[in-house]
Amino acid sequence: MAGTDRQLRGMSGLQEGAPVFVLVGPQLGENIGTAARAMLNCGLADMRLVAPRDGWPNPDAIAAASGASAVLERASCFDSVADAVADCHRVFATTARTRDMDRVVMTPQGVAQEIRQVSAEGARCAVLFGRERTGLTNDEVVLADTLVRVPLHPGFSSLNLAQAVLLLGYAWFQAGDETPDTQRMIPAARQRATHAQMIGLFEHLEGALDQRGFYKTEALRPTMVRNIRNFLQRADLTDQEVRTLHGIVTALGGQRKDQLS
Amino acid sequence: MAGTDRQLRGMSGLQEGAPVFVLVGPQLGENIGTAARAMLNCGLADMRLVAPRDGWPNPDAIAAASGASAVLERASCFDSVADAVADCHRVFATTARTRDMDRVVMTPQGVAQEIRQVSAEGARCAVLFGRERTGLTNDEVVLADTLVRVPLHPGFSSLNLAQAVLLLGYAWFQAGDETPDTQRMIPAARQRATHAQMIGLFEHLEGALDQRGFYKTEALRPTMVRNIRNFLQRADLTDQEVRTLHGIVTALGGQRKDQLS
Repeated sequence: MAGTDRQLRGMSGLQEGAPVFVLVGPQLGENIGTAARAMLNCGLADMRLVAPRDGWPNPDAIAAASGASAVLERASCFDSVADAVADCHRVFATTARTRDMDRVVMTPQGVAQEIRQVSAEGARCAVLFGRERTGLTNDEVVLADTLVRVPLHPGFSSLNLAQAVLLLGYAWFQAGDETPDTQRMIPAARQRATHAQMIGLFEHLEGALDQRGFYKTEALRPTMVRNIRNFLQRADLTDQEVRTLHGIVTALGGQRKDQLS
Repeated sequence: MAGTDRQLRGMSGLQEGAPVFVLVGPQLGENIGTAARAMLNCGLADMRLVAPRDGWPNPDAIAAASGASAVLERASCFDSVADAVADCHRVFATTARTRDMDRVVMTPQGVAQEIRQVSAEGARCAVLFGRERTGLTNDEVVLADTLVRVPLHPGFSSLNLAQAVLLLGYAWFQAGDETPDTQRMIPAARQRATHAQMIGLFEHLEGALDQRGFYKTEALRPTMVRNIRNFLQRADLTDQEVRTLHGIVTALGGQRKDQLS
């Protein structure tokens, strides 16, 4: 049963309407395995293979999948692209180079939005990835509805297979992900300081500085107070951190150890 | 000089204000090389290394960089994270797991926007990537201003080093990229058909269908005409394609070869 557990690892909680990823004529088993891993990272588990060079199944692929072997176990193998996408309604072909072909070309983000939308309408989508060295043939590309090209640094735009799979897969995952771009992780036992707690801290600090003659002149005092309050306010402190700062002010404001009698 | 050319490959046209990527304690040279390749794909060329396990330079890294060896040639090596980011103003630490640490956590997209913004204000930014197995230590994470976590399928969220580098690098590249999400690549010698050309095509086709008795009844004719015009209009034809369709209508509407006298 341990084998079953391993095989099912990561296969629960997958979303409906995920696209099929079709690797066309992949040459290296290792690339098939790392592509499977990248797919599962993005919650994708439907891989199809068209005429993999070294046959199928391929032990190199399983070794490289690092726990995503369940994707490989489920992968199906076809003789041609036409067979592999026979049941699909929308097919996207990844391509690195401009072809002299009058087609719509989308970014991974555009494709991700399109897949989310037409999948919600009940369409099954597939994304084609070509051979490591030579990509897809023009006849294979014509089978697709739309081309996908990943915008990259023009001087060095060749992606390896698993990296292309990751960028397309991540764009799809991201299009359905609601993680805020920025969030503060405040531990459950703490909360942000109230403004009353901040004022209490400011007054404690300002009083202690007064006692030490920190403000050179009374005229400078208001500006210096504002500057100090400003960065403390910007730090977005928790209640615990305000208590820590009270402790620091008290410690620094007290007698130095070497002056203790 | 061939070696020089190869070394400089992809190093022109890089954008100003790009972040430094810091690999902390990388274990496998191969991962350093594939990370360099992923960086250059995204127009990033400033790699720093902190205490790579197998020393530096590392021939495995160069072998895996696939033409991005210029990134490795320029990489500098440091003893500690603090040394590696000493000249940086904003430091982001990638982390896979939630730590019991009260920090701001951003997505790669959030970080990309932030880097673009503060770089434009003159700040140098760095992104830290931890060791393959164990990531960054808590003491290293505390050196950063902000954490970065890539949202991924919760059941299988472990990324390899180069894949993490690729997702962060691509988010940065994308934040400055203006490629439209969807564009039609019409070859230069062609253009979209005018509406007059489309009407000419419709009338040619509808007349030919009339001659063959395609419309069962005159009452059905308007609906069928609209349906046919509808999908032809949706196909967004070019002038050349309209000429091809005229030819098809003429050919199908003419005498069959076996009926030619």
